[in-house]
Amino acid sequence: MAMKNGIFVTLEGSEGAGKSTQVALLVDRLRAMGRAVLTLREPGGTELGEEIRRLIRRVDFTIAPCAEAELLLFLASRAQLVREKILPALHEGMLVICDRYFDSTLAYQGAARSLPLEQIGFINAFAISKCVPHITFLLDLDPAEGLRRVHLHHGKEADDRMERETITFFEKVRAGYLSLAEREPDRFVILDAHKSIKAIHGEIFNFLCHRLGGAIESR
Amino acid sequence: MAMKNGIFVTLEGSEGAGKSTQVALLVDRLRAMGRAVLTLREPGGTELGEEIRRLIRRVDFTIAPCAEAELLLFLASRAQLVREKILPALHEGMLVICDRYFDSTLAYQGAARSLPLEQIGFINAFAISKCVPHITFLLDLDPAEGLRRVHLHHGKEADDRMERETITFFEKVRAGYLSLAEREPDRFVILDAHKSIKAIHGEIFNFLCHRLGGAIESR
Repeated sequence: MAMKNGIFVTLEGSEGAGKSTQVALLVDRLRAMGRAVLTLREPGGTELGEEIRRLIRRVDFTIAPCAEAELLLFLASRAQLVREKILPALHEGMLVICDRYFDSTLAYQGAARSLPLEQIGFINAFAISKCVPHITFLLDLDPAEGLRRVHLHHGKEADDRMERETITFFEKVRAGYLSLAEREPDRFVILDAHKSIKAIHGEIFNFLCHRLGGAIESR
Repeated sequence: MAMKNGIFVTLEGSEGAGKSTQVALLVDRLRAMGRAVLTLREPGGTELGEEIRRLIRRVDFTIAPCAEAELLLFLASRAQLVREKILPALHEGMLVICDRYFDSTLAYQGAARSLPLEQIGFINAFAISKCVPHITFLLDLDPAEGLRRVHLHHGKEADDRMERETITFFEKVRAGYLSLAEREPDRFVILDAHKSIKAIHGEIFNFLCHRLGGAIESR
């Protein structure tokens, strides 16, 4: 199944950057305009994927999952999401918005956990079957501010394993994202996540309208 | 962590070939001789792996996991098993016996489900970190006989997704295994699984004693 007609948009950024908030605002506005929109999140988005998400977020394993197993779990969830949801929706001409996709894998497991980027790229290609986003919004945020927001939101004990990582880890994630954006300037739009929710939403919406415009139907 | 000192043995074969029975007999005998033996099974063998096993064997998904997701789940379980159990045990000089390992992936997901063998090989190499078995016993069985045994054992409704596959599927699995054995004659020992449990056990035990003998300590 090919990606014909539909538009595939992803939102990326580290914890506290406001991805979920922006996805919700964007979807409400697009639906109010009558657009057919499908929103998804990673890991998860399918019955299998949500089970995998639960495994990845578990903190009570006696021995924590190794980096390789974690990576393969993320990719299993993605393989299912692509085939069960993303490709069928794009085939029907829908706008698909995904909260995290493969850039997360490259930034978190690659740049931050130091798994080899080339190998991740190869295994990811197997998982996604050429389903690459048309546009990726990167919500770029200072890691200290991101952690402050997460703790404000969840209380002192952050609620999953990923959110208990150190600030050094999130600095590597940020650097990883920025390097990906530099390599693919046509796909990435870098947004300053220190700005207000409303301002960022305006930038995303305007960019999308400008870039896609009437072309949504013709792609 | 390297594989030094220990011996890594795997048992392979399709459903009904008697792998679990042979593992149990072999382990009892080796332990009675005072050998330190660790037995494992795939998928599973770790806390994470057993959760993944449960997911892979679930039959009540509304949309079944795609072949790519299934493969990545198997490999996630394996990555954890290698790092959490197999390598540490081999490092301590133990004899590790695993019921299924990567040849299962190549036979089932590769030969039978037609995922590209080269890609599976690459992703598997990422998962196993050079942890290749020293000896692999292949219990070779006619698929019709294998299915007859499975139904005899479980009743008419076989109890998981894999066991509900057709006979054509298991013929491809068998051909896949035999082709793997042909390519690595030094690692594989092909056994006729139509023989009695006792006869097969004798062959496995004798081969292991002959091949390893006093060398168990020196490898």
